[in-house]
Amino acid sequence: MKNPTLEGLFHETLRDIYYAERRILKTLPKMMRAAQSEDLKAAFEKHRGETEVQIERLAQIFEIIGKRPQAKTCPAIDGIIDEGEEVMESFKGAPALDAGLVAAAQAVEHYEMARYGTLRAWAACLGMTDAEQLLMQTLQEEEATDEALTQLADTSVNEAALDKAA
Amino acid sequence: MKNPTLEGLFHETLRDIYYAERRILKTLPKMMRAAQSEDLKAAFEKHRGETEVQIERLAQIFEIIGKRPQAKTCPAIDGIIDEGEEVMESFKGAPALDAGLVAAAQAVEHYEMARYGTLRAWAACLGMTDAEQLLMQTLQEEEATDEALTQLADTSVNEAALDKAA
Repeated sequence: MKNPTLEGLFHETLRDIYYAERRILKTLPKMMRAAQSEDLKAAFEKHRGETEVQIERLAQIFEIIGKRPQAKTCPAIDGIIDEGEEVMESFKGAPALDAGLVAAAQAVEHYEMARYGTLRAWAACLGMTDAEQLLMQTLQEEEATDEALTQLADTSVNEAALDKAA
Repeated sequence: MKNPTLEGLFHETLRDIYYAERRILKTLPKMMRAAQSEDLKAAFEKHRGETEVQIERLAQIFEIIGKRPQAKTCPAIDGIIDEGEEVMESFKGAPALDAGLVAAAQAVEHYEMARYGTLRAWAACLGMTDAEQLLMQTLQEEEATDEALTQLADTSVNEAALDKAA
């Protein structure tokens, strides 16, 4: 660690979530293709578009802190997504596949909420108002995505898995 | 996947979080020792006690579904905790260490919230009332822990990192 201050920690964590968002962007089309429910496909497609904008926001924050956008391997998102890919393989064609996809996507959303919540608080503490605003926008999108997935699970996806299994 | 139904997915995810909780239980004493703030040490100690109870609840749920408690390696929590351990090493003795520890702990909490939220919804869907109740209790504890960490960061930990860095 070259810079063991809050600024240094902010930069490292920005690189971590930059890697994570790019891995998520690559994974969402696979999840979209795998999903059986049209509503779930649409939710993943919507979030793919949001993720592109979120990556652009991260690039703006790198610019604000005078660093070039550079990813740092994030073993956390790699582990979360690897688990999601295992579900896609193991449950291929199975009634519970969509329920597993929602679970995987919500684990991703929660990782993002944790990181953006932290980064937003640090930006506020460091007096970086513009960065804080950008991070808050993304945080609210992640929270809304997670809530939409919960609704989808509760209103159709989980019951569908159960009906077909019965 | 031997059982590609919602019951099968529930069992696999239970094994995943059982592994995760046991890894967390091993890691919390390290985080407690590393923390500079007494309040943060106390928060980790409190959560260590809760984690023991949460593991016991998981054992009860394995019993409800007639399976023996068996962990399944969870690459997600391994990745999240590996990142936390990197922070503990890189920021050892640095002003921003506690801020990094809170961030790591909140990433752990969010993983748990995602998994317990999902398991609770599946238990409800599968008509497993007792399991649902146990999962809800743990979910509420994880949410309270996350909220307490946010408070700690906002009221002291982040400012402390900043003051010392200035």
